Amino acid sequence: MFKAVIEAEKFRDSVEVISTLVDEARLKLKGDGISVKAVDPANVAMVSFDLSGEAFDSFEATEGEIGIDLKKMNGILEMADRTDKVELELDESSHKLVIRIGKLSYTVSLLDPSSIRKEPKVPVLELPAHIVIRGEELKRAIKAAEKVSDYIRMGVQGEVFFIEAEGDTDRVKVELARDQLVDLKPGDASSLFSLDYLSDLSKVIAKAEKIELSLGKDFPLKLRFMVAGDKGEVNYLLAPRVESE
Amino acid sequence: MFKAVIEAEKFRDSVEVISTLVDEARLKLKGDGISVKAVDPANVAMVSFDLSGEAFDSFEATEGEIGIDLKKMNGILEMADRTDKVELELDESSHKLVIRIGKLSYTVSLLDPSSIRKEPKVPVLELPAHIVIRGEELKRAIKAAEKVSDYIRMGVQGEVFFIEAEGDTDRVKVELARDQLVDLKPGDASSLFSLDYLSDLSKVIAKAEKIELSLGKDFPLKLRFMVAGDKGEVNYLLAPRVESE
Amino acid sequence: MFKAVIEAEKFRDSVEVISTLVDEARLKLKGDGISVKAVDPANVAMVSFDLSGEAFDSFEATEGEIGIDLKKMNGILEMADRTDKVELELDESSHKLVIRIGKLSYTVSLLDPSSIRKEPKVPVLELPAHIVIRGEELKRAIKAAEKVSDYIRMGVQGEVFFIEAEGDTDRVKVELARDQLVDLKPGDASSLFSLDYLSDLSKVIAKAEKIELSLGKDFPLKLRFMVAGDKGEVNYLLAPRVESE
Repeated sequence: MFKAVIEAEKFRDSVEVISTLVDEARLKLKGDGISVKAVDPANVAMVSFDLSGEAFDSFEATEGEIGIDLKKMNGILEMADRTDKVELELDESSHKLVIRIGKLSYTVSLLDPSSIRKEPKVPVLELPAHIVIRGEELKRAIKAAEKVSDYIRMGVQGEVFFIEAEGDTDRVKVELARDQLVDLKPGDASSLFSLDYLSDLSKVIAKAEKIELSLGKDFPLKLRFMVAGDKGEVNYLLAPRVESE
Repeated sequence: MFKAVIEAEKFRDSVEVISTLVDEARLKLKGDGISVKAVDPANVAMVSFDLSGEAFDSFEATEGEIGIDLKKMNGILEMADRTDKVELELDESSHKLVIRIGKLSYTVSLLDPSSIRKEPKVPVLELPAHIVIRGEELKRAIKAAEKVSDYIRMGVQGEVFFIEAEGDTDRVKVELARDQLVDLKPGDASSLFSLDYLSDLSKVIAKAEKIELSLGKDFPLKLRFMVAGDKGEVNYLLAPRVESE
Repeated sequence: MFKAVIEAEKFRDSVEVISTLVDEARLKLKGDGISVKAVDPANVAMVSFDLSGEAFDSFEATEGEIGIDLKKMNGILEMADRTDKVELELDESSHKLVIRIGKLSYTVSLLDPSSIRKEPKVPVLELPAHIVIRGEELKRAIKAAEKVSDYIRMGVQGEVFFIEAEGDTDRVKVELARDQLVDLKPGDASSLFSLDYLSDLSKVIAKAEKIELSLGKDFPLKLRFMVAGDKGEVNYLLAPRVESE
């Protein structure tokens, strides 16, 4: 059983976080919210997303799992204005999800959860450096890096968080000292990442007031931020690209 | 003889109504306005459009017929701001139309009306159900239907006007009771239509305060609405798609 | 030595003037500003651009010449908001240019000036007719001409400046009398030009309060206008297309 009402933009941002990695997802329904874990087909990035029932205007669910076509959901949510209420209701007998936006009523078939890739195991990582940065600022650095390369290096040097990208002939660098950040816990960290994943994520990142980054030396990047009016928690893990020499 | 001045947006909307169906049209000039009848190449939709001389700031015409390239006209009208005055003047000797927008003066060759497909005969239809709906609302339903199918079903069930579209796995439905509509005269009606035509028309539809729909059972859809500041009357007829079984 | 700070929009407009003609340019650095001369690969148009040191918030340079990839520069400048300060600094030892925008720092390799096409010799021309027109008005005429042709004719007839374009069947004409222009010095003038060049230039043209045009009979068009807050002087020369008969 699942029946809930949520503001369109909150649900749209939630769906977007997941759809940067996968086209189809298993939603775990619980009494107090929805959670999704997904890993991209190339096994480079992984997201763990928890949307609290408090993000909803009303939320009722019993434990269960449903399979959703995220692209289709995105298309339907486009029909809603930012503040429209989106009503979601599971029709268990017909195995369909009914989505109501104003006078529109969509009935979409659910996917068989067992046909969707299994939930990844999220590894526990101890990362030495921690940075808290405004979302808009991180997005800007990602956009700047795109101009010169397909890769981006992030790290901490002394008390300075740096983001840099290096092309064949050109380089871009952003250096942010502790007082230019929301917070910084220094540590030995410098890793290279594929820009593709961060570029896809940058629209949602820009909306977040702050992003917590955890970094190590040639270790994955951990991003943690809130969406859906601080009621949706995103934990995103991006594998480093280890340079061959 | 033809010489007239009209606000750019009024003329643009008028041209757009016709150009959703055909690229070239015969304009019938009369002392009190312009009328156009056109049918699309596939014979699925037909429009009959009457633009009153009152839509114009000034209007003088003697009876006649001119052939217009609507795409070209659209291109030229793009040069005008919404409230710019567009001056039209027929140069009979050179068989050209002069279009003045501010300091710009376009001279375009007319098409030979006899080279353009003949005016269709508009069939007289008795349709049992009549609905009056706000243009914006009808557009929204059309857009919603596009998400799941290439076809749209419209009909009346009891006192409720419904619009629905059904894809392979998904369905969208809009149901509007009498009090959610401008007006409703119930009748036995349910017909399937190609979305293409309605999608093309949806931009103009959205601008109309109200749209009169007439429907029957596997019968054509009749749309009647006003453009150009209520001085242009559009009568649009769309053939149903009769399902083969 | 070169170190300067300039408002993003001023620098962007300056780069755009040159990049309508060439992808790479030689910048001549002088104590009081920067100058560039460039000719397009087809030898049809030539620009001579002088950006005064006064366009900059601060400007220090010794005589020299650097080779710039204009496309790359445009891409980097997109990262800046209109009023952002752009800091430019030459790193002579590494042969690189450092571009700082807020916290971003780009380091781009310079091109070898000798690999870039030589500065053209700007011919001295005595053109009989002179017109001063608002940039926005000239842009509008260029856009109008694009609707019917790839060529544009400009000339003066009596006390009237005219711009016209003629397609196979259609024609557009703009006629501007002296009192509709900023200024007019009549003279025998009528020349045909390729629209491509003027279309590319039209965005910058539209920003200029006034454009000085000089014209002759089948002679080049000379455009003179200011960018970068009236501190950048553009002298643009466009060869006529002489009709073969």
